[in-house]
Amino acid sequence: MGLFSKDIKTFDDLFVHQLQDVYYAEQQLIKALPTMAEKATNKELKQGLLDHLEQTRGHVQRLEQVFKMHNAQQKGVTCPAIDGIIKEANETMGEVENKEVLDAALINAAQAAEHYEITRYGTLVAWAKRLGRNDCAALLQQTLDEEKTCDQKLTKLAEGTINVRAA
Amino acid sequence: MGLFSKDIKTFDDLFVHQLQDVYYAEQQLIKALPTMAEKATNKELKQGLLDHLEQTRGHVQRLEQVFKMHNAQQKGVTCPAIDGIIKEANETMGEVENKEVLDAALINAAQAAEHYEITRYGTLVAWAKRLGRNDCAALLQQTLDEEKTCDQKLTKLAEGTINVRAA
Repeated sequence: MGLFSKDIKTFDDLFVHQLQDVYYAEQQLIKALPTMAEKATNKELKQGLLDHLEQTRGHVQRLEQVFKMHNAQQKGVTCPAIDGIIKEANETMGEVENKEVLDAALINAAQAAEHYEITRYGTLVAWAKRLGRNDCAALLQQTLDEEKTCDQKLTKLAEGTINVRAA
Repeated sequence: MGLFSKDIKTFDDLFVHQLQDVYYAEQQLIKALPTMAEKATNKELKQGLLDHLEQTRGHVQRLEQVFKMHNAQQKGVTCPAIDGIIKEANETMGEVENKEVLDAALINAAQAAEHYEITRYGTLVAWAKRLGRNDCAALLQQTLDEEKTCDQKLTKLAEGTINVRAA
């Protein structure tokens, strides 16, 4: 996408642009999650992050299916939002000394990424339906549901264990 | 916060750091929302963004109250996440030609910012309670509730009007 060209002409273009943005975001998360899991001390958090890594790989495959179904170019476009979320996670992690506090910071960072994906997939589902692509919407909805479930699990883990130990 | 020092030593430091991060984020939104409102074509969306600008000013004041109550340094720390979300919004807006499609892109951008705040305030409320600061938690909860209501309104507007016109 050129910054100074008007590459998005139709609602369909916007949908495809957003798909490509999320495709990039998921790929960045695949790179970031192993480091986060490595830094986590709490076993449940470590495992949760590794499980989410596996799930994220599935989200990438699902996006590739949507690209194919919609006959859209399968590529990632740089997504400054996820780059910023990951940059912030790395910066904050670098500043935390105590392991229990670091776990709390890690879960906060993971939830920021989750929420980013929840908003984007929520939009993508709505847009797909509006474009008459209920087939694409159904696939994207599966990912959305998984992201929401993951966020709820992280909240439960944070409130039940991680924050208690950090405080 | 120094990038190479370990400035966050306790859970309380992490809480204050997150407060300062959100304080910066709200201020960036105060700068970004007027441009977004100006670019919006749909009257309801334009008004919604302006209303949210007012609400955001209230969130800043509420954070200043929390800084005071918690005896923490009232300052913003650069938040690459919101910077990325705003940068992405500006880039996408610059690429959209059609006004109705631009409205859909604007609402998508606003919801990404909302969700960022929802996740951060959600964490702040949980952390404040864990630190025994139910007074701070109650104030932060008010903002969280407003962010959630705003997000729901935007979803309703997107699905009921904006996406229909864009498609």
